[in-house]
Amino acid sequence: MSGLVEMGKRAQVAGLTLAQAKTQKKNEALLALAERLVANTAIILAANEKDLASAADNGVRDAMLDRLRLTAERVVDMAEGVKQVATLADPIGEVTHMWKNQADLTIGKQRVPLGVIGIIYESRPNVTVDAAVLCFKTGNATILRGGSEAFHSNIALVKIIRESLAASDFPADAVQILEDTSRETAQGLMKLNAYLDVLIPRGSARLIQAVLENATVPVIETGTGNCHVYIDKEAQQDMATKIIVNAKASRPSVCNAAETLLIHEDVARAFLPSIVAKLREENVEIRGDEQVAAIIPDIIAATESDWETEFADYILAIKIVPNDDAAIAHINKYGTKHSEAIVTDNYFTSQKFLQQVDAAAVYINASTRFTDGFEFGFGAEIGISTQKLHARGPMGLNELTSTKYIIYGEGQIRE
Amino acid sequence: MSGLVEMGKRAQVAGLTLAQAKTQKKNEALLALAERLVANTAIILAANEKDLASAADNGVRDAMLDRLRLTAERVVDMAEGVKQVATLADPIGEVTHMWKNQADLTIGKQRVPLGVIGIIYESRPNVTVDAAVLCFKTGNATILRGGSEAFHSNIALVKIIRESLAASDFPADAVQILEDTSRETAQGLMKLNAYLDVLIPRGSARLIQAVLENATVPVIETGTGNCHVYIDKEAQQDMATKIIVNAKASRPSVCNAAETLLIHEDVARAFLPSIVAKLREENVEIRGDEQVAAIIPDIIAATESDWETEFADYILAIKIVPNDDAAIAHINKYGTKHSEAIVTDNYFTSQKFLQQVDAAAVYINASTRFTDGFEFGFGAEIGISTQKLHARGPMGLNELTSTKYIIYGEGQIRE
Repeated sequence: MSGLVEMGKRAQVAGLTLAQAKTQKKNEALLALAERLVANTAIILAANEKDLASAADNGVRDAMLDRLRLTAERVVDMAEGVKQVATLADPIGEVTHMWKNQADLTIGKQRVPLGVIGIIYESRPNVTVDAAVLCFKTGNATILRGGSEAFHSNIALVKIIRESLAASDFPADAVQILEDTSRETAQGLMKLNAYLDVLIPRGSARLIQAVLENATVPVIETGTGNCHVYIDKEAQQDMATKIIVNAKASRPSVCNAAETLLIHEDVARAFLPSIVAKLREENVEIRGDEQVAAIIPDIIAATESDWETEFADYILAIKIVPNDDAAIAHINKYGTKHSEAIVTDNYFTSQKFLQQVDAAAVYINASTRFTDGFEFGFGAEIGISTQKLHARGPMGLNELTSTKYIIYGEGQIRE
Repeated sequence: MSGLVEMGKRAQVAGLTLAQAKTQKKNEALLALAERLVANTAIILAANEKDLASAADNGVRDAMLDRLRLTAERVVDMAEGVKQVATLADPIGEVTHMWKNQADLTIGKQRVPLGVIGIIYESRPNVTVDAAVLCFKTGNATILRGGSEAFHSNIALVKIIRESLAASDFPADAVQILEDTSRETAQGLMKLNAYLDVLIPRGSARLIQAVLENATVPVIETGTGNCHVYIDKEAQQDMATKIIVNAKASRPSVCNAAETLLIHEDVARAFLPSIVAKLREENVEIRGDEQVAAIIPDIIAATESDWETEFADYILAIKIVPNDDAAIAHINKYGTKHSEAIVTDNYFTSQKFLQQVDAAAVYINASTRFTDGFEFGFGAEIGISTQKLHARGPMGLNELTSTKYIIYGEGQIRE
């Protein structure tokens, strides 16, 4: 625990330097890091081999091994990602608005770094580089806590990052990693309020839940998406079909994929047979209520729990609804407030859905799959927030900043 | 605890209605509430009498009794406060920016309510009305948990608020209060993540610490201010004197009052005698380091703990520093990142201070006492955030909102 406090102090000191760093100098450091990563490919892959070997010994599944595996190509991709962050606009220093108050003080709201950001994550070692450089670009110091399965890879990557930062005249302590991957130390990090400004967990629902339950440091919750597509009675069949197939089957494992299709009873009989046929071509299993079964007999009966579940798989629940109110009520009851879409030609129905559905991203006539920092044009993504505080939806560089009021006076005192 | 879940559910349902309410209708409900409060003065004062009587029985100090006491005049003030909130611009629905992405989707970022806000507070019953109406204006449902010392007053006020809301065709459950003021129920509220979007503690440092330690719901930390005024070598003596006297002595009990004066060694001998004389006229006790004692002999020697302390009293610590770097380092080490001021005529020194001091509000040539939602021109204040997440510094109506991305498509799917 005293080790954590020391790390926290060093991060805070490094953060004060980072907060004052010029954009040009930060970008040069990022480009130098990209080069150094590629130049150290052999060292990175050797460390990764150790992780892969012990994972194989522990009988880790192939899919997990693939997430863990680094290759020369993946190191190049990592470096390209770092270069790309160097090209993004630096939000730090921006004064988002400025006004005079009644005492004639000029008050500006300026973007500043959050300070020290903790990241707790699992598996993929590229998160180490990704998180560190996004935080660095926004002038934040980072304390990383990766999963034990990627231990050697993460340590090797952080060593290269720290050497590179030092070579670019930045404090190496801008990026630190916990070398002790015990649960106790992770819990200590979650309570390091004196030094950490925010904690961002990235990984499984179980990891995020553990952080939410134990952290006293402010947390940004990321993750679960039980998303819906609602096909209105005034929807175009072709558009509706393309959107639900894309939302469900283009990448079912991600949080912006759809889990339930809601369809208006007036068009269910006409639309569902071809929609289900298309989904089955993509190997999607259909679960539906009795009304759906009356149209598509060979489906699995949906249970209450199906409406609540983020399948993250080739499974879609379908429910027929009598009107848009029922669709909106279903979404607000079962959804996780992530991404929700309506397909309709009707102006008033679209506006009602947009305003009444409570979610981070609400779509008219588009796939839920667009909820993503890169797709939104942010140029980066540190995660997708599913809470309402600080940031909601895809988080880019702006979401890694706080603000500070800067006040210009001429000797004013308060009456 | 099951009672809490029921309250949470009702608040969430009420929140969905509030989120859709028209501004005009919300304002009419606020004006009706202001009238109803005044009309029910006798009931409010009778309830308050019970609280005052049991506080007196419990030997509560006079200053506390005064905070607890309501009078006909204070009820009128409360009602005026409610009317004033009706006049403020409604932030809900504002689209802060809107753009096209590369898939030609039109993406807007719209202000929406946070949802359900929990407020845990102490003593003053006017917080009950204040918090409830600010949350209501921004379309948020509220679950209040007041202190046991104001129990009868709070219950009476919430009953009037609920009746008034219902009479204005709003769900009464937009405002609820815990009738059980036990610690267990408060702790249950702190963990009501399924229904609460944020928890705002208002009160003593001990209360805020307890909430920070126990809450799993996102918290906005408010409170402590260990604020500094730094008098540079190029400061004007008159301006410097006025600012430190105002910052320290105009209202020492509040969080934006100054606790430590830092003064450049080049002007200490010239400025300190008259500054200290003025402060002593205001009954301020001076604590200083050895260098200060060499100029003003009859002071108390400052200890390390004096630099860390928010006195919230007529006490000022004074330290002589060799340069601006030492002043900035002292502030970044001991300050609570609340409000910090420099007095200087030098452009470069002022800019350096503004950028390098890490605080919610940094002043050039003005008193720290201006850190306040009303002084900043927000028209309201729910508290002053001392954390960096979501909101930093004075929080007005905008800080009681979240955002939602609204996306207009034409059938786009993600490649």
